[in-house]
Amino acid sequence: MANTEGSKLWGGRFVGDTDPIMEKFNASIAYDQRMWDADIRGSKAYVKALEKAMLVTTEEKTQIEHGLDQISEEWSKGVFVIKPGDEDIHTANERRLKELIGAPAGKLHTGRSRNDQVVTDMRLWLRDAISTLTDNALQLISTMVERAAAEVEVLFPGYTHMQRAQPIRWSHWILSHAVALSRDVDRLLEMKRRVNVLPLGSGAIAGTPFDIDRELLRKELNFDDISLNSMDATAQRDFVVEFLFWASLCLTHLSKMAEDLLLYSTKEFSFVTLSDAYSTGSSLMPQKKNADSLELIRSKAGRVFGSCAGFMMTLKGLPSTYNKDLQEDKEAMFDCYDTVHAVLQVTTGVMSTLKINQTVMEAALSPDMLATDLAYYLVRKGMPFREAHGVSGKAVFAAESKNIPLNQLTSEDLGALSPLFGSDVSSVWDYRSSVEQYSAPGGTAKNSVTAQVEHLRNWLKRETQ
Amino acid sequence: MANTEGSKLWGGRFVGDTDPIMEKFNASIAYDQRMWDADIRGSKAYVKALEKAMLVTTEEKTQIEHGLDQISEEWSKGVFVIKPGDEDIHTANERRLKELIGAPAGKLHTGRSRNDQVVTDMRLWLRDAISTLTDNALQLISTMVERAAAEVEVLFPGYTHMQRAQPIRWSHWILSHAVALSRDVDRLLEMKRRVNVLPLGSGAIAGTPFDIDRELLRKELNFDDISLNSMDATAQRDFVVEFLFWASLCLTHLSKMAEDLLLYSTKEFSFVTLSDAYSTGSSLMPQKKNADSLELIRSKAGRVFGSCAGFMMTLKGLPSTYNKDLQEDKEAMFDCYDTVHAVLQVTTGVMSTLKINQTVMEAALSPDMLATDLAYYLVRKGMPFREAHGVSGKAVFAAESKNIPLNQLTSEDLGALSPLFGSDVSSVWDYRSSVEQYSAPGGTAKNSVTAQVEHLRNWLKRETQ
Amino acid sequence: MANTEGSKLWGGRFVGDTDPIMEKFNASIAYDQRMWDADIRGSKAYVKALEKAMLVTTEEKTQIEHGLDQISEEWSKGVFVIKPGDEDIHTANERRLKELIGAPAGKLHTGRSRNDQVVTDMRLWLRDAISTLTDNALQLISTMVERAAAEVEVLFPGYTHMQRAQPIRWSHWILSHAVALSRDVDRLLEMKRRVNVLPLGSGAIAGTPFDIDRELLRKELNFDDISLNSMDATAQRDFVVEFLFWASLCLTHLSKMAEDLLLYSTKEFSFVTLSDAYSTGSSLMPQKKNADSLELIRSKAGRVFGSCAGFMMTLKGLPSTYNKDLQEDKEAMFDCYDTVHAVLQVTTGVMSTLKINQTVMEAALSPDMLATDLAYYLVRKGMPFREAHGVSGKAVFAAESKNIPLNQLTSEDLGALSPLFGSDVSSVWDYRSSVEQYSAPGGTAKNSVTAQVEHLRNWLKRETQ
Amino acid sequence: MANTEGSKLWGGRFVGDTDPIMEKFNASIAYDQRMWDADIRGSKAYVKALEKAMLVTTEEKTQIEHGLDQISEEWSKGVFVIKPGDEDIHTANERRLKELIGAPAGKLHTGRSRNDQVVTDMRLWLRDAISTLTDNALQLISTMVERAAAEVEVLFPGYTHMQRAQPIRWSHWILSHAVALSRDVDRLLEMKRRVNVLPLGSGAIAGTPFDIDRELLRKELNFDDISLNSMDATAQRDFVVEFLFWASLCLTHLSKMAEDLLLYSTKEFSFVTLSDAYSTGSSLMPQKKNADSLELIRSKAGRVFGSCAGFMMTLKGLPSTYNKDLQEDKEAMFDCYDTVHAVLQVTTGVMSTLKINQTVMEAALSPDMLATDLAYYLVRKGMPFREAHGVSGKAVFAAESKNIPLNQLTSEDLGALSPLFGSDVSSVWDYRSSVEQYSAPGGTAKNSVTAQVEHLRNWLKRETQ
Repeated sequence: MANTEGSKLWGGRFVGDTDPIMEKFNASIAYDQRMWDADIRGSKAYVKALEKAMLVTTEEKTQIEHGLDQISEEWSKGVFVIKPGDEDIHTANERRLKELIGAPAGKLHTGRSRNDQVVTDMRLWLRDAISTLTDNALQLISTMVERAAAEVEVLFPGYTHMQRAQPIRWSHWILSHAVALSRDVDRLLEMKRRVNVLPLGSGAIAGTPFDIDRELLRKELNFDDISLNSMDATAQRDFVVEFLFWASLCLTHLSKMAEDLLLYSTKEFSFVTLSDAYSTGSSLMPQKKNADSLELIRSKAGRVFGSCAGFMMTLKGLPSTYNKDLQEDKEAMFDCYDTVHAVLQVTTGVMSTLKINQTVMEAALSPDMLATDLAYYLVRKGMPFREAHGVSGKAVFAAESKNIPLNQLTSEDLGALSPLFGSDVSSVWDYRSSVEQYSAPGGTAKNSVTAQVEHLRNWLKRETQ
Repeated sequence: MANTEGSKLWGGRFVGDTDPIMEKFNASIAYDQRMWDADIRGSKAYVKALEKAMLVTTEEKTQIEHGLDQISEEWSKGVFVIKPGDEDIHTANERRLKELIGAPAGKLHTGRSRNDQVVTDMRLWLRDAISTLTDNALQLISTMVERAAAEVEVLFPGYTHMQRAQPIRWSHWILSHAVALSRDVDRLLEMKRRVNVLPLGSGAIAGTPFDIDRELLRKELNFDDISLNSMDATAQRDFVVEFLFWASLCLTHLSKMAEDLLLYSTKEFSFVTLSDAYSTGSSLMPQKKNADSLELIRSKAGRVFGSCAGFMMTLKGLPSTYNKDLQEDKEAMFDCYDTVHAVLQVTTGVMSTLKINQTVMEAALSPDMLATDLAYYLVRKGMPFREAHGVSGKAVFAAESKNIPLNQLTSEDLGALSPLFGSDVSSVWDYRSSVEQYSAPGGTAKNSVTAQVEHLRNWLKRETQ
Repeated sequence: MANTEGSKLWGGRFVGDTDPIMEKFNASIAYDQRMWDADIRGSKAYVKALEKAMLVTTEEKTQIEHGLDQISEEWSKGVFVIKPGDEDIHTANERRLKELIGAPAGKLHTGRSRNDQVVTDMRLWLRDAISTLTDNALQLISTMVERAAAEVEVLFPGYTHMQRAQPIRWSHWILSHAVALSRDVDRLLEMKRRVNVLPLGSGAIAGTPFDIDRELLRKELNFDDISLNSMDATAQRDFVVEFLFWASLCLTHLSKMAEDLLLYSTKEFSFVTLSDAYSTGSSLMPQKKNADSLELIRSKAGRVFGSCAGFMMTLKGLPSTYNKDLQEDKEAMFDCYDTVHAVLQVTTGVMSTLKINQTVMEAALSPDMLATDLAYYLVRKGMPFREAHGVSGKAVFAAESKNIPLNQLTSEDLGALSPLFGSDVSSVWDYRSSVEQYSAPGGTAKNSVTAQVEHLRNWLKRETQ
Repeated sequence: MANTEGSKLWGGRFVGDTDPIMEKFNASIAYDQRMWDADIRGSKAYVKALEKAMLVTTEEKTQIEHGLDQISEEWSKGVFVIKPGDEDIHTANERRLKELIGAPAGKLHTGRSRNDQVVTDMRLWLRDAISTLTDNALQLISTMVERAAAEVEVLFPGYTHMQRAQPIRWSHWILSHAVALSRDVDRLLEMKRRVNVLPLGSGAIAGTPFDIDRELLRKELNFDDISLNSMDATAQRDFVVEFLFWASLCLTHLSKMAEDLLLYSTKEFSFVTLSDAYSTGSSLMPQKKNADSLELIRSKAGRVFGSCAGFMMTLKGLPSTYNKDLQEDKEAMFDCYDTVHAVLQVTTGVMSTLKINQTVMEAALSPDMLATDLAYYLVRKGMPFREAHGVSGKAVFAAESKNIPLNQLTSEDLGALSPLFGSDVSSVWDYRSSVEQYSAPGGTAKNSVTAQVEHLRNWLKRETQ
């Protein structure tokens, strides 16, 4: 009333008792309905605790359970009707429960607050999401490991600084990415333990004043642990941030692999050819076949990082306990999950169906990539490495000056650079022999690559049990 | 075929000629349909250029125009049906055009690429969005300025470091935020000139090989300028990044204002009371009235910054010209627009309807906030400021030791600190006199605050013309 | 030559064989000298492996070890002289070694690359840094836990949405932050296992071709594990990103605590007073005492997040293996360490010396904060919670209308709202009784808070062993 | 005292009246000394205003000026001695002034606060920094434009999605980046106007109570305008954020150019060769020549974005007016300046000295890149583009099936696809003719590229005046 006059006075938007823009701005039902199942599971556990605390009778409990089951069915079948006033999934479900069973519905929220309810729902939801992503990641790693095993004989140039460096096995490259992803799985599982902690029974801030058996709730909902402090439980969102960061790091790893494959699939490299299922054409240029899948994979690291960065900024400097700012948690969490879920599956598809062009790969090996081996030849004859590195550099320069490959320097050419060069230097120029030298753990020799495959197979076996 | 076997071999997901997950991952129709109108406007201009270049006949042009009008109507009425294969708004509209008018539809894309088409649509859309946001921001600033004009007599504590610093006018506080927002409007308008540049006629990368009159296109679509270089035009997205950053900075400003108001609306400060339209209750605590609107405003700075950060990361290190990574541009742009659009309107509502508690505000002024004035009193009597600052500090300490307000020190107390104190020191202890001293431009004296109001009123008049 | 002409032709900067700006841009010695000790430790282990592989003689090994010891001493004493050409700590140390012992120095780099050397140094350095930060964090948590134990009797308002919500124990607030920090310690220790993995022996990309005993290196350098894949080992920096993120999340937690304390230290709240050691004055206003320490703590979440965000962006889309872009890793890592190291210690100082104003804290409790308890009173008499919440809300409204505290409503007033109200309602209005209800695990009752203290004391005991 | 006991009680760090860690944490002299010149210039202007306001005598003014000149000389010569207690450049300079001239030094701060002083210094410093960066950017653009003019005859493949798309001019590629950078210069100059606003005379928060002539200050310090509101002037840092974002966007542009050049300098593309001044070798591999300069340029987008992101997070939700959190502004600003300053110069060096391999570039053109032109051939004969695109696609497929280049399809082959193909189709297969078609503004035809060069030359002429 006074407000309305004020509004006129200062020329602002007219606002009565409610502002529809504010109501829409405030509501989360558009996206948090996605947690309908977690919300119902949480309530079904809670009503058991209420009965034990004698806050509902056994009959009321049964009524509430039946009501919740019916709501669950409505959601499953896609027939649940959201009504005006259903600002979030929690009010929607409770409103519907009341319609279905009447008065006892009003007892369900006893000692519970939306603050502990929402975070319980999120933890249940995210726990399941993590399980799915773990499976997706393991399937991708498994695909990569088996591909590495199958193609272990293929050599191609290893690059540093995007320049040809040394001959390596193609499988060594595959495994370098698989190993990074295996650490992502490790992180995901460590994080899961922190996600899988029951907050229910923390109320709005102070805890619960009734004999709510939190251990019973924990068991019912299959949580590993119970939250320690009600203020922390209701309003810290580090478990969400951790997930968003996890997604960002994982997709940064995949952006690196995608970038490599995009390079390898250029006309100029021509090492790999994507399956048509993962390529698209151009609206203008009939000859184009673009590796859109890889570009999308590469791009999504930015997207999920954006969610992480945005939510961390929202949290920065926020006072303790629940503030509405926290409502930003859910869209970020859902979008990151959806994105990583799709990316992992598409990457698995790409890696399953990619064709390699072994001839081109091996033709790309060139004698200058063995310059390090040439230095090592001298080292093995007793020359200090720094000196050998210098002599090998001079050999590279000599070959470039003569415009011939490094391996076509004559014994006179080499002899002029060091008396240690003998006729056995010819053994240096074999790419397969070269890679076989790198047989220490982690190296690119066949035994070493095979050991990596075995290591990862065993790890996968443990993780998928 | 071979791929499929491969897929089995390595245990990956089975993928045939297409992968439905990839198709969904690749498609943008779910969100870019929002640009249906811009897409149609762009095509209507383009067909004019095609006619002028004699690439369509006048009759074909008319057919295409009618077809486009009909599609426009379908979208307006919400009856346009998206079909499988409509991967984006551009293919959807062209597919529909073909259904409606047949063969001539196939001429519309002559010399055009999705690369220049999509960025034309985005620029048209964003230009309109910027106009709307400019209006929203001006309305907010206007509301604030008029409120400042109306409440210019209200004093309250100015804070630095969240500690009471000096008495200021409430209007001075309001205007400090309005001035920051006016710079945001300046930035928005500068940016608009860079957005409002025609890329159409740039093709996929190399330009257009036909006599497409780009000047005609510019006029038809009301752009200020024509893009200079086709590679830059089709694939730089700095205009999007600039918008995302603009939104982030603007909402950072509003997060600051919201934080102030949240402080002022605590029980402890009690300076302001939000209208019920912008407050909500608690599901647990019956007495609670929470300033959710302000918390949401504060939080959204994080959200839009996240979009900006994410998209910038996507752009980092991306090679020239169109890469599918750029598809991340649209959701970021739309979400930032929607967010800022809502935030500006809700903030206007809050500022229109907020009640101030003048009595509490003025009661919060305390004599120690005049310690600087006490030092200035001595400065005016000739004492160097550093010394005066020290004497005033001792007076504060003396009052604290005696547990009395600073203005109740006796003339003996003061005389012991400096012989310059006379009976006229009593004039220092008047809050209204205090603020009136700050009459230089930008200060908190009435004339100075009124001058700020007038300055902003004039600026608003110019901007809203 | 041709380049130089070209340079003139296009008017660019004149550049000869070298560009001093490029050299400075490229060099990292200004900051990576900080790893001098790790670099020497790494080399001392490596020379042992070289001896075992018979790549150096025992005598050469001894010479190299003595040389390295002498370099170590020079660094410790601050007399090591960096010379032009020392682009990084690795070249500086090797250059000095050669000056000191001559030819054998040239053997030290045999089979090693800067790629595996630099990442070995970083992991050694970061492992020690993590140990220090763990100690800092444990000391902070311990201080908080003991303070919570000592002040367990103090009540004050718990806030949600920055509005008074329910009475809680001050210790409950302290512990809510301690619990969050304990998760940060958990994360740090999990991360340490991933940091503490030996990359040495991975060469530039392909591994090492000599009989370098990586297990010997691991033991010498006290790593937990050996890297699995040489390409991953030399160029993945997820261990750095993880650390940067850890720092960001930890400081986000502390920004929240700082924000609470900043609120509590305003004149308006007056719950706490910072020690002078953590406050500063104003250059202008003699009466000011600002909580600069808390503001700095709050601000640093932004700083470390910036390092994390920046480095993640640098990594996005980077091709495999070493690229010079990775050089951004070190400054980010060092700055985050220094920042968190200072923040944890300053926070410990603040929390050790903060004075609480118990009288003010308890005076801030008001009967309306017991509105939830009033509802629970009715619940205990059998009314469904939703209804009880409504009745209690009406009581709040009635008290506000009469302008009296909630606990001064008469039995008539209450009786008009519900027949369940009896004379025993007076028991509701006791703050100590109120908090004692919240005795479920995690709640604010004394037993529950004490249990939290015990839990954390036990955890601390385990962690500090 | 009580605090100290408290400290023992809770086991925290022992802290007396001061905490050396806190003092270091609080001090900014380590980095803000960089603004010594701006600080002195600001004080020299301020003393003039003090004299006009009769707050210092002419003699005192002269003394202060001489003192400030002497301090300036000490800084220039590198002999200024920072003493304990000099927490920032402002206190250091004022402390030194007092040592040099005694009592009158105490008058310099009259009516001034560190809050308006620091922001005045920053604006002066940044204004100069912006001028330097503008020069750097213009020199880079000029180098690029002149190079584009000189090499306008060179053709090479234009890529989209990292796949060969259409033949373009090398100069067209250069200009695409120059055009983006020219917008960065536009933004920088727009921003400069917002930076170049005088805050001095705003005090700590409320303004100045003396007759300080702010217009005199403005003229003395050569600012364009005077700040409107003292609270906004002392504590908004949007001018810093804007600069940090500007740097981020500019370096994102350069990261894109660097990525292109890194691709072009791979062995596989071999289009360009970097000057030795911008390349480095490998510690392990003698043959390597790495484009470290380009990798560093690419990486720095992350670094400066990190500063921007970090500082924006620090600002999020910060209350109005000065809070110590703002101290994060300076290191971010300095580091971004230094980084962009180096990057622009190094990029200029790279672009001045880069050698192109024209033969390789032109050999990389292939007939399939003319498939669009083949479609356009049909369009010109009256076939709708969509149909022509399809026919051309079939021709590409036919050539691939026969394993011959597209231009070696026989007239029978083509005739089977469309009767519109005539013998004049042979005209399609000329790369120079192809690019010459793209003669609309912004296209890759010679006239169009030359027009871009002229446009940018004129723009440069205007900007460098």
